[in-house]
Amino acid sequence: MKFCSECGQTVTLKIPEGDNRPRHVCDHCHVIHYQNPKIVTGTLPVWGDQVLLCKRAIQPRHGLWTLPAGFMENGETMEQAAIRESVEEANANLRIQSLYTVISLPHINQVYVLYLAELKDLDFHPGVESLEVKLFDEQDIPWQQLAFRTIDFTLKRYFEDRKTSSFPIHTHAIEANNRQLDTDTSD
Amino acid sequence: MKFCSECGQTVTLKIPEGDNRPRHVCDHCHVIHYQNPKIVTGTLPVWGDQVLLCKRAIQPRHGLWTLPAGFMENGETMEQAAIRESVEEANANLRIQSLYTVISLPHINQVYVLYLAELKDLDFHPGVESLEVKLFDEQDIPWQQLAFRTIDFTLKRYFEDRKTSSFPIHTHAIEANNRQLDTDTSD
Repeated sequence: MKFCSECGQTVTLKIPEGDNRPRHVCDHCHVIHYQNPKIVTGTLPVWGDQVLLCKRAIQPRHGLWTLPAGFMENGETMEQAAIRESVEEANANLRIQSLYTVISLPHINQVYVLYLAELKDLDFHPGVESLEVKLFDEQDIPWQQLAFRTIDFTLKRYFEDRKTSSFPIHTHAIEANNRQLDTDTSD
Repeated sequence: MKFCSECGQTVTLKIPEGDNRPRHVCDHCHVIHYQNPKIVTGTLPVWGDQVLLCKRAIQPRHGLWTLPAGFMENGETMEQAAIRESVEEANANLRIQSLYTVISLPHINQVYVLYLAELKDLDFHPGVESLEVKLFDEQDIPWQQLAFRTIDFTLKRYFEDRKTSSFPIHTHAIEANNRQLDTDTSD
């Protein structure tokens, strides 16, 4: 941020009076521009023993597999956003069952919130952001071609929880690291 | 938003190509400025049979009671943010126990995420944003002087859940309404 979105003049990064972190403050109208984490929400769509994954048609991680998820928009509830993303990316008809994983990613200022969902039918197909949408049995999950560690975490918890048919909410934090996703997808 | 924060020129609210919602787009450098919901996070601090509330020293809802909570900051995990807010508003020493309520407020573009927490000691006192910090028994909760419906919802669930000593996560959405909080705090 270089300019004030209210008056168009320059901003300076400084700690406002009474605050304790640097903010972009307008040099002219003195508005403080706060920046906060964003919510990425979506679903883990289930059909019997299978889960639905989407092959990304966009960057980052073009060509890798993910769960349908994306940035929550203003004016939505989190469940509405999760369903909308599942429709946009997979044209999936689904019913949300329960909140499942809540994952903080402090190094990129995001919080992932993923819901368990039940597919209502097999009438899904790729949206513009997906190259392919497909159901996978556990043994066929492309663990080495998953797009994000949040997805790896969520799928691992799911297959583990399925052994006991108990799906508690998992809260987690993933920190920055330099590991290559294609050689190590563990948390 | 009236000006581009990247180049300082004017922005126009329009639907970018390939998108389906109006965004502020720079007339000069064509950057799209997305705006997304913010996370408000905090705790429900418990000491035996009592819960800790803070009397607000700031607007909005100056003088009304709330749980320690505030906007999550960049670079934090959600749990870190919840603990920081509890320290800032109540100087409370606490241990987070579990995620408790997740409440979407689509009309104001917020998601509340509140954690159950256990106070470690009674060494709390008001921070600059609180007039008073106090433990309450259930029968003394100032239901008619609570600052926000999210707080009312969370406290009601807590006292209900306490009857069975089971504290599942509650997800909820609160829509806009015109009811006066001082005459009706129900959801």
